[in-house]
Amino acid sequence: MSGAREQIQTLLEGAERVLIVAHIEPDGDAIGSALGLAWALRRRGTLCTVACADEVPASLRFLPGSEEFVARWRVDEDVMVVVDTSDTARIGAIYPEDARHEVPLVVIDHHTTNLRYGDVNWVEERAATCQLVLELVTTMGIPLDDVIATCLLTGLITDTRGFRTRSTDAHALQTAVTLVNAGASLGDIMDAVFRSRSSTMLRVWGLALSDVHLEDGVIWVSVSQEDLERVGAAPSATEGLSNLLSTVRDAEVAVVFRELRPGVVDVSLRSAPRVDVAAVALSLGGGGHRQAAGCLLEASLPEAQALVLNALRQSMTEKTTAAGGGTRRGVDDAGHSGA
Amino acid sequence: MSGAREQIQTLLEGAERVLIVAHIEPDGDAIGSALGLAWALRRRGTLCTVACADEVPASLRFLPGSEEFVARWRVDEDVMVVVDTSDTARIGAIYPEDARHEVPLVVIDHHTTNLRYGDVNWVEERAATCQLVLELVTTMGIPLDDVIATCLLTGLITDTRGFRTRSTDAHALQTAVTLVNAGASLGDIMDAVFRSRSSTMLRVWGLALSDVHLEDGVIWVSVSQEDLERVGAAPSATEGLSNLLSTVRDAEVAVVFRELRPGVVDVSLRSAPRVDVAAVALSLGGGGHRQAAGCLLEASLPEAQALVLNALRQSMTEKTTAAGGGTRRGVDDAGHSGA
Repeated sequence: MSGAREQIQTLLEGAERVLIVAHIEPDGDAIGSALGLAWALRRRGTLCTVACADEVPASLRFLPGSEEFVARWRVDEDVMVVVDTSDTARIGAIYPEDARHEVPLVVIDHHTTNLRYGDVNWVEERAATCQLVLELVTTMGIPLDDVIATCLLTGLITDTRGFRTRSTDAHALQTAVTLVNAGASLGDIMDAVFRSRSSTMLRVWGLALSDVHLEDGVIWVSVSQEDLERVGAAPSATEGLSNLLSTVRDAEVAVVFRELRPGVVDVSLRSAPRVDVAAVALSLGGGGHRQAAGCLLEASLPEAQALVLNALRQSMTEKTTAAGGGTRRGVDDAGHSGA
Repeated sequence: MSGAREQIQTLLEGAERVLIVAHIEPDGDAIGSALGLAWALRRRGTLCTVACADEVPASLRFLPGSEEFVARWRVDEDVMVVVDTSDTARIGAIYPEDARHEVPLVVIDHHTTNLRYGDVNWVEERAATCQLVLELVTTMGIPLDDVIATCLLTGLITDTRGFRTRSTDAHALQTAVTLVNAGASLGDIMDAVFRSRSSTMLRVWGLALSDVHLEDGVIWVSVSQEDLERVGAAPSATEGLSNLLSTVRDAEVAVVFRELRPGVVDVSLRSAPRVDVAAVALSLGGGGHRQAAGCLLEASLPEAQALVLNALRQSMTEKTTAAGGGTRRGVDDAGHSGA
């Protein structure tokens, strides 16, 4: 692994222009890793461009440089670095397969399921890809400053849901110490990431929670299109709701059913370590992580409920704990924002 | 300050029996500090008793030794240590003023408003009193183990609401690193502290949030006695709700009005750094911290709403930011459990 890091260091030190790519539906770790690396390389004179096929979410627009993201592939950069992205599908529309081998493609990722599609792949388990970027920057002898530290700490905080995931080990906490000492404001980042709800969002949560169900370890709520329209909320208003449900003591699995339009239901799943919701999501055409997964069903709300609750019941009875595959489809590591 | 710590070390090293007292309505920092110190002193052969006037909350009963708390004052101990307690009123019913000077009374507290009522007072600003206990234990040369570390990390996590308060600095994070390295499980503690809600609790939140109000930077909800009865919830079901409200972007102040019985309303206040809700609570006969305060009003729900919202509006217009006094009446440092 350290061999890959050394190769990356050599490539980056020899490059005049670098393109850094974050994955689609970008989260704090993708945006933070890309920007943290860009700002660090700029400190030594490298020209850096950051790219992402999708828009930077509003909650991450406080990050310095977040307005710079372009939705394009390489133009005249000497090296491409793709961060936090486990497969090329996650690069999205800006990925032209035929332009693939023109310049070295570097992959830096903390997902051990990474398909190693780069010319150099540095894939190592960490709580966040930002930790790998910090290690690279430190190895390259680039001094940290508050801008770099803010970008990297944001990735660590979002991917660990504010240090609440099981991936948060002493090393992750030590990274936070380093970045705070370098000038990142933990309080500002926590506020930006976790205090960005709207009152309309909470009104939707209210409608959903008023009719919360808990049966056999599964807690679930439904949000109909009508609910969203009634309070004038966007579908994204349910983000974070499944995390809130998963804070209930007796719930092993939390499910949010969201009707996008008649006959189409988006299902968001969270689970305690014993239950693998990625496997359940995969069996329904979706995917994700063991503890945070999702799927999109062509069904009415009651049909979707029956389908998913049955699949969960079966899976939990069988105590199926086989590690689920599947790509991370629309589910970030921390399961959206923390509740 | 370090002089006080050295005196405390000398007193504790000379004691055969020590009584360690946590404050009324105990939170994780009070219970964690008391137990962390007790387990550490026991490692060197000291007999320790832990005392608290009130019961240990259910969410803290995972802590080793939490079942040992007795609601009594000193019997035959040589030294008393009161932790995390800013004044004698917070010791509660187990405090007999006349027994006060029989043996040395040691106070260890991170609240700088502490009234220094002990014979030796070690009051120093930290994110949690548990950090001071860790410093004392380390100075005394007592090796940490997983039991001591679990107790102390719990206090740090609850008082910083999972590292989300502004008091969480690099030193606090470094303390967490030390305690995780000593064997505390961050994940287990986070789960115990923040994943202990009931579905009934969320149903109450649902009722409240369905009618959430946001006006002039103040977000508020009400929970009537009838609401609680309808879903069969205890009044404590609203705990954490004001923290959830305070995650709304445009809210500078969050208020939860809870009708305890006809004509009696409990008011819970949270605020962004600019607004001092302790001063507002104090003006209404309550108290607390600048960012987390509360009061009890003899009024109907509509009367209480009018009273508090007016006081807030006035305070926010005046930009009154004078540091509010008041004792911590029923409001813990982190504002109950994190949302």
